[in-house]
Amino acid sequence: MKKQSIGVGLIGLGVVAGAVARVLLDKAKVLAEQVDCPIVLRKVKVLEQDLTRPQALEMDSQLFTTDEDEFFAEPEIDIIVEAIGNENPALEYLKRAISSGKHVVTSNKEVIAKHGAELLALAQQHKVGLRYEASVGGGIPLVAPFQYDLVANNISGIYAIINGTTNYILTRMAKDGMDFFLARNRAQQLGYAEANPENDIEGIDAAYKLAILASLAFHSQVRPEDVYCEGISRLDSRDFQYAREFGFAIKLLAIAKQSDNLIETRVHPVFIPEDSLLAKIDDVYNAILVEGDLVGKVLFIGEGAGALPSSSAIVADIVSAAQDIAFGAGSGVRWKLQPGKVIKPMSDIETRYYLRMNVADRSGVLAQISKVLGDHLISISSVLQKMVDSVSQTAEIVIMTHPAKEAAMQQALEEVTRLPVVNEISNFIRVEE
Amino acid sequence: MKKQSIGVGLIGLGVVAGAVARVLLDKAKVLAEQVDCPIVLRKVKVLEQDLTRPQALEMDSQLFTTDEDEFFAEPEIDIIVEAIGNENPALEYLKRAISSGKHVVTSNKEVIAKHGAELLALAQQHKVGLRYEASVGGGIPLVAPFQYDLVANNISGIYAIINGTTNYILTRMAKDGMDFFLARNRAQQLGYAEANPENDIEGIDAAYKLAILASLAFHSQVRPEDVYCEGISRLDSRDFQYAREFGFAIKLLAIAKQSDNLIETRVHPVFIPEDSLLAKIDDVYNAILVEGDLVGKVLFIGEGAGALPSSSAIVADIVSAAQDIAFGAGSGVRWKLQPGKVIKPMSDIETRYYLRMNVADRSGVLAQISKVLGDHLISISSVLQKMVDSVSQTAEIVIMTHPAKEAAMQQALEEVTRLPVVNEISNFIRVEE
Repeated sequence: MKKQSIGVGLIGLGVVAGAVARVLLDKAKVLAEQVDCPIVLRKVKVLEQDLTRPQALEMDSQLFTTDEDEFFAEPEIDIIVEAIGNENPALEYLKRAISSGKHVVTSNKEVIAKHGAELLALAQQHKVGLRYEASVGGGIPLVAPFQYDLVANNISGIYAIINGTTNYILTRMAKDGMDFFLARNRAQQLGYAEANPENDIEGIDAAYKLAILASLAFHSQVRPEDVYCEGISRLDSRDFQYAREFGFAIKLLAIAKQSDNLIETRVHPVFIPEDSLLAKIDDVYNAILVEGDLVGKVLFIGEGAGALPSSSAIVADIVSAAQDIAFGAGSGVRWKLQPGKVIKPMSDIETRYYLRMNVADRSGVLAQISKVLGDHLISISSVLQKMVDSVSQTAEIVIMTHPAKEAAMQQALEEVTRLPVVNEISNFIRVEE
Repeated sequence: MKKQSIGVGLIGLGVVAGAVARVLLDKAKVLAEQVDCPIVLRKVKVLEQDLTRPQALEMDSQLFTTDEDEFFAEPEIDIIVEAIGNENPALEYLKRAISSGKHVVTSNKEVIAKHGAELLALAQQHKVGLRYEASVGGGIPLVAPFQYDLVANNISGIYAIINGTTNYILTRMAKDGMDFFLARNRAQQLGYAEANPENDIEGIDAAYKLAILASLAFHSQVRPEDVYCEGISRLDSRDFQYAREFGFAIKLLAIAKQSDNLIETRVHPVFIPEDSLLAKIDDVYNAILVEGDLVGKVLFIGEGAGALPSSSAIVADIVSAAQDIAFGAGSGVRWKLQPGKVIKPMSDIETRYYLRMNVADRSGVLAQISKVLGDHLISISSVLQKMVDSVSQTAEIVIMTHPAKEAAMQQALEEVTRLPVVNEISNFIRVEE
């Protein structure tokens, strides 16, 4: 029997959920055409304090409930949308929704990154869909392309700028010569960074998103703790200056590679060639480069966050779930795990390195450093000697290496630090070409 | 009852079809996992001359038939893939396939651009799917994102580099200073241009693809003849030089805009700001920029042609059709036409213009030209006076205008041509900012 309407229940009424509610109301006609059936917002589970938000005041107050049992008991709801973020109570809500046979849409990267496999299994058991397009890259189509368009590809690599806050900060440091703290404050003033931006700055947000993308791309469960993670707070404006001198830009990249059933996933600042497209992705834009054996390189670019782009992805998921309900589709298996894949230890990766160190300003220093590097089979491709300080008799040495193993580099750095002529290793940054 | 296997019939055995066959055979295991059911190539409809192609020699000859009745009578085929290109007999084959209840996958841009609406109606009538992801942008996910990810958006604009041949030629002209014919010959030598490359050079191929994208994006039937079309053969290396002086690059863009139910679609060379991302898309790469009310700007970049990228898209369509069959989905309505949309006449568009003209080298010439432009309410933003030839007493004048109506510009150009001091209008190129 054809349904009269498809009901949506919304959990949360923050800016994203508010935008979703508005789209469902304002675009009801065009959305109904896509499904041949009206999609109706039936209930919104809110907290007491949500009721005074601007987005609440413009909606019918009958829609709201602060009682979760009342919300989950609403019989007219077919699809539950969770947009409250954070792990708890979102995870419990999603499990409860799925277990009661509702299709589920979420924008929650933390829950999907940590519990995606478990939730997917639960959804398959209950024959409902679990959709999370908005969890990565805002409105940029990513989850669906992996599940559908790129399905015939063996994906070898993902190189992604997937955190707008850090990309904004790095853009200001690179273009305006700001130092990290000034750029971070600017990002906070503009609302691009939260009051406590640690999750963004330290790469944790990007690691969640990379875990989601890598799991999809490699048909394997990549957990957040499988992602090696370094943030951007130790970058100095001088690093940007030297990067330019070597022909590079600095970006916080989320990198996932797969070869011979070994999966490598890491988030850290990298030098990338300044004429690459990724180097030109500025401000809060996101970009995701995917390499597949058939498709070659494809690159997706767009705004990675914000209420409207996120609502674009969430409503697309709602429409897709509604189509499955209206057209009687089963719950498509679109993420089939392939066993036998292993996470590569960080110590086994191989890249070029940029090293910046403060040394004594005297002859023979470079020879001592190159000797240590050479002992670990690391060879130098170029060197800059900078900023001689005649008072303290120190100088800055900047080194670009040829490709080397991470384990060898870590050991070499430890030994270099112990050289009496080396005052400190100010920074080291990996290179991705 | 669960099917034992899903059968595929392939029409054609050119390089693209050959790649599809190879992927279906080589990746049978991983594809079967996506559908929970094997996808089996049952029959290939070939021409006599296909049988000696390399891709034929490595396949089981039992798969081939030159008899179309035998092909269409094969009972084990659920999905028919057409990859022969051109309008006929592909259109007849697709109609026959749909009418006999087969799901259909095609990479045929000409057939979809010209007959997409008709074929879609036929497919809905017979409750089968019609998929054509490979018809635009090779392996770049485009059709599915419009049908699914961007479905909640009101799309206001598409700005696309969707012909690799012309983008390669323009890249050589811009970067190596080649003239058009040399660059075209180079493209032919490298296999990037056909022996008769007119369809590419004159923008016809791009117009087919734009008609497909605009139809999807605007939920309206945009036919190839609705697309205003100019090619790249009249571009001169001097145009690239002047473009650079003004801070622009030259690209063949396919542009579609929608506002107030008016649709504007055109393919022609344009000046675009040299620091825009589209300006940096070189060689045979394609790029499609989409603007939506929710998502903002999203940009898709990748290889727009080639056997492997196209096979990526075709096999994705096969898997999707197979999932619909295996999971018992109905034929989802994913392209619902909205009535009342009208194509805007080219004379009504408004852009800035670049004009290059050969004039008499004497005083007062610019005054005469600006007078004519001014009479048509076209104002000049900047002027370069170039290449004075003392023998013929001629000079080259290059003008950038402020935004003006196309109709006014065409009338003004006609009058400028009649000025005795103007020898010829060497070129005029629209600007897109």
